[in-house]
Parts: sequence; C-alpha cells; structure tokens
Amino acid sequence: MNVFGNILKISIFGESHGDLVGITLDGCPAGIKINMEEFNTDLARRKSGKIGTTPRKELDRPEFVSGIYQERTTGAPLTILFRNQNTHSKDYKDFLQQPRPGHADFTAYNKFGGFNDHRGSGHFSGRLTLGLVATGVIAKKVIFPVFVNAELIEAGGMKDIDQAIQYALRKNDTIGGLIKCKVENVPVGLGEPFFNSVESLISHIIFSIPAIKGIEFGSGFQASEMLGSEHNDPIINKEGKTETNHAGGINGGITNGNDIIFRVAVKPPSSTPKKQKSLNLETDQIEDLEVKGRHDACIALRMPVIVEAVTAFVLADLMLQEQKVPRVFE
Amino acid sequence: MNVFGNILKISIFGESHGDLVGITLDGCPAGIKINMEEFNTDLARRKSGKIGTTPRKELDRPEFVSGIYQERTTGAPLTILFRNQNTHSKDYKDFLQQPRPGHADFTAYNKFGGFNDHRGSGHFSGRLTLGLVATGVIAKKVIFPVFVNAELIEAGGMKDIDQAIQYALRKNDTIGGLIKCKVENVPVGLGEPFFNSVESLISHIIFSIPAIKGIEFGSGFQASEMLGSEHNDPIINKEGKTETNHAGGINGGITNGNDIIFRVAVKPPSSTPKKQKSLNLETDQIEDLEVKGRHDACIALRMPVIVEAVTAFVLADLMLQEQKVPRVFE
Amino acid sequence: MNVFGNILKISIFGESHGDLVGITLDGCPAGIKINMEEFNTDLARRKSGKIGTTPRKELDRPEFVSGIYQERTTGAPLTILFRNQNTHSKDYKDFLQQPRPGHADFTAYNKFGGFNDHRGSGHFSGRLTLGLVATGVIAKKVIFPVFVNAELIEAGGMKDIDQAIQYALRKNDTIGGLIKCKVENVPVGLGEPFFNSVESLISHIIFSIPAIKGIEFGSGFQASEMLGSEHNDPIINKEGKTETNHAGGINGGITNGNDIIFRVAVKPPSSTPKKQKSLNLETDQIEDLEVKGRHDACIALRMPVIVEAVTAFVLADLMLQEQKVPRVFE
Amino acid sequence: MNVFGNILKISIFGESHGDLVGITLDGCPAGIKINMEEFNTDLARRKSGKIGTTPRKELDRPEFVSGIYQERTTGAPLTILFRNQNTHSKDYKDFLQQPRPGHADFTAYNKFGGFNDHRGSGHFSGRLTLGLVATGVIAKKVIFPVFVNAELIEAGGMKDIDQAIQYALRKNDTIGGLIKCKVENVPVGLGEPFFNSVESLISHIIFSIPAIKGIEFGSGFQASEMLGSEHNDPIINKEGKTETNHAGGINGGITNGNDIIFRVAVKPPSSTPKKQKSLNLETDQIEDLEVKGRHDACIALRMPVIVEAVTAFVLADLMLQEQKVPRVFE
Repeated sequence: MNVFGNILKISIFGESHGDLVGITLDGCPAGIKINMEEFNTDLARRKSGKIGTTPRKELDRPEFVSGIYQERTTGAPLTILFRNQNTHSKDYKDFLQQPRPGHADFTAYNKFGGFNDHRGSGHFSGRLTLGLVATGVIAKKVIFPVFVNAELIEAGGMKDIDQAIQYALRKNDTIGGLIKCKVENVPVGLGEPFFNSVESLISHIIFSIPAIKGIEFGSGFQASEMLGSEHNDPIINKEGKTETNHAGGINGGITNGNDIIFRVAVKPPSSTPKKQKSLNLETDQIEDLEVKGRHDACIALRMPVIVEAVTAFVLADLMLQEQKVPRVFE
Repeated sequence: MNVFGNILKISIFGESHGDLVGITLDGCPAGIKINMEEFNTDLARRKSGKIGTTPRKELDRPEFVSGIYQERTTGAPLTILFRNQNTHSKDYKDFLQQPRPGHADFTAYNKFGGFNDHRGSGHFSGRLTLGLVATGVIAKKVIFPVFVNAELIEAGGMKDIDQAIQYALRKNDTIGGLIKCKVENVPVGLGEPFFNSVESLISHIIFSIPAIKGIEFGSGFQASEMLGSEHNDPIINKEGKTETNHAGGINGGITNGNDIIFRVAVKPPSSTPKKQKSLNLETDQIEDLEVKGRHDACIALRMPVIVEAVTAFVLADLMLQEQKVPRVFE
Repeated sequence: MNVFGNILKISIFGESHGDLVGITLDGCPAGIKINMEEFNTDLARRKSGKIGTTPRKELDRPEFVSGIYQERTTGAPLTILFRNQNTHSKDYKDFLQQPRPGHADFTAYNKFGGFNDHRGSGHFSGRLTLGLVATGVIAKKVIFPVFVNAELIEAGGMKDIDQAIQYALRKNDTIGGLIKCKVENVPVGLGEPFFNSVESLISHIIFSIPAIKGIEFGSGFQASEMLGSEHNDPIINKEGKTETNHAGGINGGITNGNDIIFRVAVKPPSSTPKKQKSLNLETDQIEDLEVKGRHDACIALRMPVIVEAVTAFVLADLMLQEQKVPRVFE
Repeated sequence: MNVFGNILKISIFGESHGDLVGITLDGCPAGIKINMEEFNTDLARRKSGKIGTTPRKELDRPEFVSGIYQERTTGAPLTILFRNQNTHSKDYKDFLQQPRPGHADFTAYNKFGGFNDHRGSGHFSGRLTLGLVATGVIAKKVIFPVFVNAELIEAGGMKDIDQAIQYALRKNDTIGGLIKCKVENVPVGLGEPFFNSVESLISHIIFSIPAIKGIEFGSGFQASEMLGSEHNDPIINKEGKTETNHAGGINGGITNGNDIIFRVAVKPPSSTPKKQKSLNLETDQIEDLEVKGRHDACIALRMPVIVEAVTAFVLADLMLQEQKVPRVFE
C-alpha cells in the first residue's frame, strides 16, 4: 500500500539505486504558489554530507513534472521526481546470501519471492523519504498559519548532539535519537473519530518512515505512572487553552487548540561499520558480515524535517476534511 | 472515519447512553464456526465490576444480527449489537457548561457544533470497544495458529498491580498502566510497504482506543540510546529466527518470523473522583468540578483484551492480503 | 466490499430472512433535523403491496439506533435497522440443489463455498435497498436545494405502465423497465477527476442495486450515432447554461450547472411464475423449476426512489468534498 | 481522486501539454516478466496517425522508472512515464475566454478557480489514457488465462466503420461509436457484494475514460423490454454454463463463469472542425467558435484497447482479492 491519505493522497514510488524516487500528491488545492527555491531549505535539512551522515552525495533536485502551471498548483495530481545519480550497487550484491541484521533484506526477499530490487535497500531505502519532504513543503503552505516544528533533542541518549556523534564515530558504530515535534496554532476540532484520531493518523505515517521504533503524545509513557489528578489539564479559557499540556493537544482523538506535542524514537542505523554476525543462507553457517556501502552514523540527524513533512501532510488532509482550508487558493 | 481496514473492514457505531453500541465486520471469510459461548471469555476480560473498575454493570451480551447462518460466517457483513441498559444520563448534564479536563467534552462540542450526544461521553466512550473485542474473537480464528497475547505489566508505575489499585483507591484518584502485547507464530512477510507497515497499522488502530498515549515496538524508546551493534538482531537460521529481538519481529515494516512485541502506555482515567478545576463556559470563571458518574480507577485493567482484539484484526487483514488465509474456511 | 463513499460512507448489512437489514451512515454532518415521519414518504414509494409487486408485506419501519440525539444528527455514525418479520424461508430450500436462473444462487454458493445464507436470496436480496432509501432521505437534506427526481418511464417496453403490468400478469410472467433520473439545481464543479467522475460514482452505486443492466447519461447510446456538431451543447450564459443538454449536465466528469440526466435499464425479475428449466446439481439433469416464494411482476415499479436515494448520496459526498455543504448544520 | 483500485491501485498524473503523462501501479504481484516489446502492440492500437484520428504524432514510448528489476516486476510500485513532445499549446489560448462546447473548459475553469492547466485540455485530455493502456498490458498478464477483447462494432451508427469515417470526413464533422467488450475464460465468483459488483467496478472505471456516455451489460437496455422467462439464462452444466447469456456473465454482481459481455457508447469528439457557437465570457456575447488544434474525427477508433486495459485491471484486482492469482509469480 504505497498510497496514503483521504482527500489529500500521496503515492510513493522508486528505488534507491533505480532511475529515481518520486511522489504524486493528489487532491492538492489549486492556486498555491510554488516557488522552486522554497524546496531547497527543507531538502537541505534532509541532505547527507554533514558529519555523522552518509558520504553518498546526491543533488536531490526536485523535478516537478505535473500539476503545476504558471508557478501555481492546478488541482491536478502533482508529481515530483528525484533522479538517482550517485549509486554504488555492487556494494549490495552479497546481502542476498547473507541478509544484513536489522535491515529489510530477509523480509523483502521472502515477501517478494526474491524479485525485489535489493540494491541500496531498493524501495525500502530511506531515500524514498525525499518525496515526503517535498510534499511537506506544499502541505506546510496548505495548513498555514498552523506551524510544525521538529527537532532532534537527543542522540545516543545524550542531549549534546555533537558530542553524541563524536562518540559514535569513536566507537566505529551507529547511534539512534529522539525527535520532538510541536505543532503550533492548531484549530480546535481536527481528527475524525473513531479510527482517524489525530494520534492514529500521525502514528500511521510516522511508522512508515524507516527506523522509527516508538511514538508518544504529550505525557506519553510517563502518563502510565501518573495519577489522574496530575495528568488532567485544566481548561482556563474559552478557546480551550489548558494550564498544562499532558494531553499533547489532543482529547478524544480531536485537537483541543493547544500545541500538538509528540516524540519519536529513532533506532541506530542497522548498517554499523562494526563487524557483525549473520547467517549465510548458502553455507547455512553464521559468518562474519561487513556492511559496505555508504551509511549514516546517526540517521536521526536527517529526520526532523521528514517528521515535520508527514505531520503537515496529515494536518492538511484533516483541515481539508474539516473545511478549514479552501479548495482553491487565491 | 468510523471505518477501518482494507480487505477486512470494521464499521463502528453507537453511543454510551444511546440504545446500543455495535460493529459490522465486512470481508470476513465464509465458513468460520461461531460458537456464541466463545465470546464470553474475551468479553468477560473487558467487563467491569472487578475492583478498580466502574460499578456500571452491563450484560454485554452480543446479538449477532447478520452474517451468520447455521453457526458459521456466511461471507456477508457480520453485525454485532450490544444493548445499553444501565445508563445514568443525568450525571452528565453539567459537562456542557463545564467541560471535564482530559475528556472529549470540549473538543466534541466544538467539532460537532454542540450537536454531539454528550451523555456518558457518547460516541467517545470506552464502551465502543465492546464491538472491537467481539470482532477480535473472530479475527483470532482467522489468524490461527498465530496467537496474540496482551497483559498489563505495570499500573501507576508499579509491577504489583493489586498494590497499585489499592494505592489509587487510597489516594481517591485514578492511575494509568503499561500493556505488553506479544504475537507468536507469525509468518514471514506480513506488512505492505510503504505506508502499511505492520507498525503503522497496529499503531493506527491502537491509538483509536481511548486513553492510549504511546506505543513502542521491540526495543522502542530504548533504541534511541543504543549502539547499532547492540541493537541489531543476528539472524541464526533459515526461517529468520534472530538471537535477540530488538526489532520486535518487524524489519522494514514487514514481519520477520519472530514474535511481534510492542508496549502501549495507558493514561489514568480523566474521571478522577478528586475535585478538579475547570472553566465554566457560562460564568467564564474557573470553578470546582466534581465528576460524578461511575468510572474506573484504572481503565488499563480492562484493556489487554482490546489490544489483543485490534492486533488480531490487523493481522487478519494483512494475512488475507498476503493470501495466508483462505477466503472460505471448511 | 459492503462499504461505499469517501467523506460520507455507507456500510450495508443484513439478509432477507435473517433478523434484520440495516445501514450505517458515517461522516454525516451534525445538526440535521431528523423527523421520523419524513422517512415514511420515501419508504412507501419502495414498498410492496401495490399491484405488480410482491405480496410479502413488511412494516419497513426504521429504527434509528445511533447517531441521532434530540432529533438531530450528532456527527457520529447513524445506524438504521429494519426488522424482518414476514419471512417464508422454506420456499427457498430447494434452490441449493437447483439454482434459479438469473439469480445469485449459483454464484453466491460458489463464491462462499456454500456457507452463504440463501434464504430469500440472503444478502443479495432487494430488501437490502431499504437502508439505501433511508440514507437517501438524509442525503436529500444534505444536498438541498439540489433536487433529485426519478421516475419509471417505461415498463416492458411500454410507456403506459398500468397497461404493461396488466400484460405481465396476463402472461403470467415478469417485466423490466426504464427509469429516468433528473437532478436539478446542481452547482458547477462537482466530480473528482480522473477516476471519480460524476458518471463513475453514480454508475458504481447504481449497479450495486440488484437487477440493473445498463446506464446512460444525457444522449447516452444515441450519442454513438450523432455528429459532433449535433451533440455539442452551446453555452449560452455565464452560469454555464447550455441550449441543449446532450451531455446530461456533465463535462469532463464534472457538473456543468445544467440538470444531470441519466437513464437506467432494469431487467425483468428472475423469479417469473412461469415454469423454467435449470440444472439439478444433485441429479445432474436439466429439470423443471417452479419458483415459489413471493415475488414482484415488475420490480422496476419500486425502484425510482432507490435510484434517487443513491444519487443523492453520491452528490452529498461530492458536495462535502467540494465544501458546498457545511460540516455542521444549524 | 486520481487513485483507483483496492489491492491493486493505479495513480494517474500528467497533462496533455506538460512534460509528461504517467501512471503508478501499486500492489502488482512480483515476478511478472516484463518485455518492453510487448507494450508496443497495445500502445499501437491506441496510437493516432490512422485515418480518422488526430495528426498529432507522439512516440508514446513508455519509460519504466520504478518497480522493475532484471525484467521482472519487483512487488514495489511500478511507474511508467510518457514524455509529451509534439505540443502546440498556442492553439488553446482562446478557450479561456470562449469555452468549447462539450469540453471540460468551462467546468475545469470553475472547479479549479482558473488555475487548471487548460493547454490541450490539460489533465482532462485523452492522452492520460496512455498510462491506462500500459497498465493494461501488465494486468492482462496477471489475469491470464482470462482473456479480454474489445472491438469497435459501430461508428456513427454504421457497422461498416471505414464507410463511417469517410462519411464524417465528408461532412467535415466528428462521429461517435459503439464498443463491445468480451471477457473469456472467467472464473466463477469474482465480484464483491454489495457495492463492488463486477458491473459497479467496470462501469466506474469505464466512465473515467473521456467521451463515454453509456454502458450496458449482457442484454442491457433491451432487458427492460423483455419478459422474465425470455431473459433468464438456463444453467446447463455444473460449471454454470448457461444456454443464453442475457446476464452478460454476471449474476448478483458476481461472475457466473460465462463470458462477461458489455457494450460502451462513445460520443463524437467535441472538437468538430465545423464552426460552432459559444458564449464569449469577455464580451458576454454568443459568438462563432472555430476549434483549432489537432483532433480526432472518431476517437472511438482508438478506444477498444483502453476498454480492454481498464477491464483487465478491474479483473486483476478482483482475482487478487479472491486469491485466484499468486502474490508472487515464478
């Protein structure tokens, strides 16, 4: 199921070492001004090349091939392509015999009878998130003046992220991280009971991003240790503002007008430079495995903008359904 | 959006103090033996009346009004109704003026322009989960011999649950809890990339259950503090068995044949017997609020069976899509 | 797939000789006044008892069991039940061995491995359309002042319908009919390219009604014999009014502001009182078959109101998507 | 809604005079052999250049940019692009002021607030069907040995098609046509009651193709004039073969094992070379309109292969759901 959304829908496609990765956004309101430059900011936040990220360098230049005319959205499906250029597929050949621990090598091989494109993890690659980020740029315009902001607040358990990266590099290993996302200026009433609660939709798409292991809203796991009288957020004005925000801005699955707050746990990249053990399917022996290819020491560094993008997408879809945004912009 | 699922679909309806709550299960394979008695076990696990739960007593007797003939599923939609009998609606009248903190009173009122049925929280009531549990009984048969088991492993932060309940009652307050769910005997290959990863679908429906604040798979939030070399699960045999299970049985969103493991955080019930503060919308003053009605000190006590039910539903839907269950049983 | 619609969704359930038939309407705007009496008019138009229709008499009294509070829709799913009372199931026992020509006996038996409820055609019965008619009453309020009107314009090829019925009864046989549907006061811009053209959605649900064999919009099949210069409808004012209406009110799948016009062909009921031939699956011989049970000589007599109902439903869904109706009525 | 299908899904995008048109096929079984040459046969049947069709010549060469590896489908989304090369956009400039009768100019302008790409009819162009034909080539492999065949059986009301084209050219006008589609070797049991009857799904997608005005299954509109005893198809063997096939191979919305038969009415192209009248929105006068651009005298000539393609797609989706095709080919 490579399609997600209700009124607003995204279709994702492409492979890491194929021709391209891309996305089609359907149901986007007409008349939204598209400035090609605006995409650079968000795409740069996802880009590799910084310390702690993969040395694979890609231009990551979006090609807008449909749904835009005279620099505005037309209401027709908007397709964005990203060419793959810097691919080293031979690094991946051996993973057919010896599936990498923590990767989709084994599961994809089994699900698709060995016909999956395994090069660079194929359709399972984090490279697929490029389209999500591009979609997010548009979604952020749809939901304006609602504002989504995500940041990495911990890496490898440390609050000083630079230090954490140094630690990982020194250890010749990889580390995970913790991302916090805050949505400000949220209207009351988003979320569709029973099954499309705001938490349901956000968690659904967040867990589509590779490497996510957990999500919690507001007080989250800590709520399980609190008393009801501590946890409840007293309402203090007619707009629904609450004194505290343990609910993370959501009651009964519907936004209450306070900031939406959630945190996301990112695992350390499975492609650690450290030598590992894994079964060789051909010899049926557990053997040493060295993961070549070019990988991230801390993929979480590149993920806040992805978290923002998919959150903006979910909110845009809910706001369209709640008729809080026009079908045609002017 | 009160409909969920792909091949297998559930439609949920009803209100806490209306005539009934119910569910329709569509796409269920034909020929499954339905023994009315079997539903009692799971429904009893959700039932109130035990210490720490609400004194509202309901028969919770399922009426099967369609989709079953000669004690077998027919392939047509299967509708199950539960009559409401023991309702005290007058307890809820005041919450229109003074919305209860932590409840959907304020959000539902705003979303539905005041036309929502607020009695007993209406369509937002935990009573809606009755249908989910009944559906789960059937879903568990569909996925057999896959086996789902959930249990409450902590309440109010304590591992001794009885002691936790005593603590809550003594404090005249409510407490949350932590539920662990394990799925055994899982086939390799369930989950539909990119958007219908197993984690995406399970978290989507888990967050539809009232009072859930967080979910984590496998190592979960702890993963964010681990090194890649610690977190990776070495594959040790051709069936994909791994030495450890930090992945929680899922790689790349697809089941890897190991147990699916996840944990769910449940908040303390918002209806604490303690006096609270909340805005009175009529006087525009923050005033004392006493939540009458009959409520649970620890709703998490009743929730493991609900977690099992929705998990079994998601797996049944994925197994049908992957053609791991027949369309017609015999 | 017993669920249909996008923002507005219906779930249908029940069997002809089971406990009940019913429907759940999800996504209905809150605040719509529901007057129980109003349903009688439309339900009466579908009712049997008139000459040319089955002598099976049912009260057809709707029970509204959820989604309504203080005589208004609440925004929660609205479920309507119709009890079955006057059932003669023994009339249907033999059709397991000797499937009735033109009926779903053979196909349903094969699809569901013999587990389908075959009594009175089970889930395939025209009785399922009761829920559609009830939904239509609400949908007509949602789309107001858009107005849907359908009528039987021919039966058995004759324009004088009374005469046609007399002919059928005299022949001891059944006849089909032709229904014309007109929608007035349609806003410009309904319909969602590419796949949810107005024609696509209307035809989808029209062909869900049992016994429909064809549908044509505007000039329909005659268009295939016309010249372009004859067929084109010249636009004559700024609102898009056209001189002729060969397009049936739709261009490019989108309403153009003129009346939507379509015609539907209804086959003669398969349950003719005439003796027929059909294979006896037990003897493997082609044998005489007499269809007992109580049936309609011309089911088309009862169908205009069903055509109106499903058309109103489709338009309501499209108008919600196009934000031409509020999410909350007042 | 530019997405269609259940297990198998297509997303369509592109404009007639933009960069390209394309399609993404999701849910396609893995392992299907893709021979680039095979696409040529079906694409050639849709191609222009023959007498009676537009002189716009396009290479119509499919670029497969994802979902294929080593000449086989991978199970990941399969995206196919067709570059636009031979575009004359200036021919379309005037249609903003003076919308062409019979076209989507007026409706699209209104729906999308004037932001739609109107050049060459933009997203409403018949050129979008290129992707459908390419998808059809794959769908035909999925459903093998089920076989779909469509042909033009009448044009402008005449059975001699060449003569009909000559007539249209002589008249300096355009003509419509009648297409008959037959599906052979159909398994019993396809179709999902209540709403996804085979007729519902086929008509839904058929009416997405531009220029379709009607569809009828089996005896179709003629059924409305027949007696039940004439219309019923006696079953003559255990496989469900019937003596006649008035039902068009479908009973109760489910295939009965006989050939599926339907007919589709195609209107004459709205872009007639004849001078027409239409409102000039700027002058508010009804003025002469000459449609330049390059157009088809009989678009129905190019449509049988499109009808086949979408029919094959619907059947593939239903066969996957009914588990009549593997998820992985070998």
